[in-house]
Amino acid sequence: MSKYHALTEAQAVQYARSLPDLFTPDSELSSHEIGDGNLNLVFHISEPSTGKSIILKQAIPYAKVVGESMPLTLDRARIESEALLIQESLCPDLVPHVYAYEPDLALTVMQDLSDHTIMRKGLIEGNRYPLFAQHIGRFIAHTLFYTSDLGMNQQEKKLRVKQFINPELCKITEDLIFDDPYRDADTNNIPPAIRDAVEVLWKDQELLLEVAILRNGFLTKAQSLLHGDLHTGSIFIKEDSTKVIDPEFAYYGPMGFDIGALFANLLLNFTAQEGWSKDAKSRADYRNYLLGTVKDVWSFFVGEFRSLWALYGVDRVFAGESYQDYYLQQVLRDTWGYTGAKMVRRVHGLAQVADINKLEDPAAKERAQRIALRIGTTLIKQHRQATSIDGLIEIALNNVE
Amino acid sequence: MSKYHALTEAQAVQYARSLPDLFTPDSELSSHEIGDGNLNLVFHISEPSTGKSIILKQAIPYAKVVGESMPLTLDRARIESEALLIQESLCPDLVPHVYAYEPDLALTVMQDLSDHTIMRKGLIEGNRYPLFAQHIGRFIAHTLFYTSDLGMNQQEKKLRVKQFINPELCKITEDLIFDDPYRDADTNNIPPAIRDAVEVLWKDQELLLEVAILRNGFLTKAQSLLHGDLHTGSIFIKEDSTKVIDPEFAYYGPMGFDIGALFANLLLNFTAQEGWSKDAKSRADYRNYLLGTVKDVWSFFVGEFRSLWALYGVDRVFAGESYQDYYLQQVLRDTWGYTGAKMVRRVHGLAQVADINKLEDPAAKERAQRIALRIGTTLIKQHRQATSIDGLIEIALNNVE
Repeated sequence: MSKYHALTEAQAVQYARSLPDLFTPDSELSSHEIGDGNLNLVFHISEPSTGKSIILKQAIPYAKVVGESMPLTLDRARIESEALLIQESLCPDLVPHVYAYEPDLALTVMQDLSDHTIMRKGLIEGNRYPLFAQHIGRFIAHTLFYTSDLGMNQQEKKLRVKQFINPELCKITEDLIFDDPYRDADTNNIPPAIRDAVEVLWKDQELLLEVAILRNGFLTKAQSLLHGDLHTGSIFIKEDSTKVIDPEFAYYGPMGFDIGALFANLLLNFTAQEGWSKDAKSRADYRNYLLGTVKDVWSFFVGEFRSLWALYGVDRVFAGESYQDYYLQQVLRDTWGYTGAKMVRRVHGLAQVADINKLEDPAAKERAQRIALRIGTTLIKQHRQATSIDGLIEIALNNVE
Repeated sequence: MSKYHALTEAQAVQYARSLPDLFTPDSELSSHEIGDGNLNLVFHISEPSTGKSIILKQAIPYAKVVGESMPLTLDRARIESEALLIQESLCPDLVPHVYAYEPDLALTVMQDLSDHTIMRKGLIEGNRYPLFAQHIGRFIAHTLFYTSDLGMNQQEKKLRVKQFINPELCKITEDLIFDDPYRDADTNNIPPAIRDAVEVLWKDQELLLEVAILRNGFLTKAQSLLHGDLHTGSIFIKEDSTKVIDPEFAYYGPMGFDIGALFANLLLNFTAQEGWSKDAKSRADYRNYLLGTVKDVWSFFVGEFRSLWALYGVDRVFAGESYQDYYLQQVLRDTWGYTGAKMVRRVHGLAQVADINKLEDPAAKERAQRIALRIGTTLIKQHRQATSIDGLIEIALNNVE
């Protein structure tokens, strides 16, 4: 680690020049640091003469969390680049290409996706992405299946578990998703208007039991190599392309945690239509689009997952149809639960979402927050009885009608 | 690994002499290799002039499994000695003391337990061990609690998971316990007299579903650092002392797997009383003793585990009483299931037990085998509905009456 130093823009250019087969020798390159500076430096390096460009992402050895700097391992750059390479091997079109990884500098060189939009922003703008459900359904089916005991050599899988032991970033999730929102923690950002609803959670014993069960699953269920932070801010999108980025939270955990992260963020945008939609009809339309996306993602996931299992399952004992039904039912239950947990933490936890927080009308914002808490807590409480994705959609609809 | 070489008896003496503070300088030491030679060399080194003695256990780089040699990692010696050291830190009186560990030689120097008997042998001889339930109940409570997310720092636990990734030895369990007994595998040793009952298992879809669920738990549920092979042949015992040995299968898995291994082997001896007991009364007596032991172990375990949790639980979210009840019910369910799986594999799998196999009367042996299959398969099938340890005991009794 002694060779580590944070790059300047000039050093980023110099490093980019040293990469083989990317830029024309001696051509002019421009460099801009475009990261938000919380966790990483992000340099956009472009060659005006050819239009070529790349991204250099460099981890910095601290994070601005809880308002101040705290040390954070540079090993997350290794985790991110190694996870990206595995994901690229499984779904080459759905992640940025990695050109190089420089361990000493905690630096990953990857494809520039400036022509894509961050999906959260796209949804806030009311855009629709007709290919998204199919793309992301394939992404979760392939990454979750092929890294699990169902789809890869089970002894190599154990070495993967070892490779992706990720204590520091898991700790962030454990605190911010599965602990702090359920007590009066300093890290929370409780909107004063809904403090009454938040305080109800802290005393709801039925809810707290189910949160403990979900926390335990996050801590112990080493099913698949997860992305670990699969919200709509980790997805670059345009009409015909979907790219999943930023897998620095990758570790072996429950499949439903990734799927739930995705559904939670679609449903948070669903609640935020209290403010974004111009009228009742456009609100109902866009909500239907979002719920349709949830349903389609699940259908594509299940269809693809089942066919991968039938064709490429590695385990004789797991090949029975009734076991596969049982297994997918467990994934569904986890998905309900983690969807709920991921919604609740975004309402009054440390890290919230622009979908709700950028609403200008305080009444609409408050309605969205209360709806999100109701949907989230209902999903958490009912997750062990879940039987279908339609049930989840019904809970969402019941809480806005 | 280049420094590795299998020790001769003379080299074992030489090595023992080099250990500080053990033997008198220049005194005569005797050395005998007493291992069965399947997996390890075991040297008993003693100093006749003082009566002092130690054990040198050296892993050999292959195993005699399936009738021929297969390569097997020497890393298991590291796993064994590191697991022993953790167990010793938690229950110093219940494991052999480790004097030294020599990684290059895959060699562990430990306390000589020649004054103890292997418990399987003791049970076959009809002995009773009044302190055993209390001892082993404490062993499982402390080792399972303090290595789990309930009782240790959760980020350090993840590093422990990494430390005890144990692919090769887990593979043996995965094959011999959770696969081969449920198909016509070459590795099985099917007693011809009960082939009919064995073939029934292979077509029992209800059973195969539950076996798949238990297999999945073994593969993915990283709850605690398990001993991994906690049968009565891994326990040295005498009236006032219990010592758990041989944790080379240690890895992070479901708590119920260790408890189930123990119960299965008590119940196998229970079935074998078809032959060992002289008459109906002594048979009923000894069976009551064994079932009483199962019940007492569970009670001591639960009592101790709950009090450790109350006093030393590290996790606020897991502190609720209803969660603790839920958690222990899940451990009970796993215990039923793994007890059943561990019984079935010992009837017609590769590795069987002397309790049954040493019975001389073929009719008694066959009865014992059929009883073991009935108890085992019933426990597997009903494990997800388990509510009490009494239910397990009832199943055992119902199948001999």
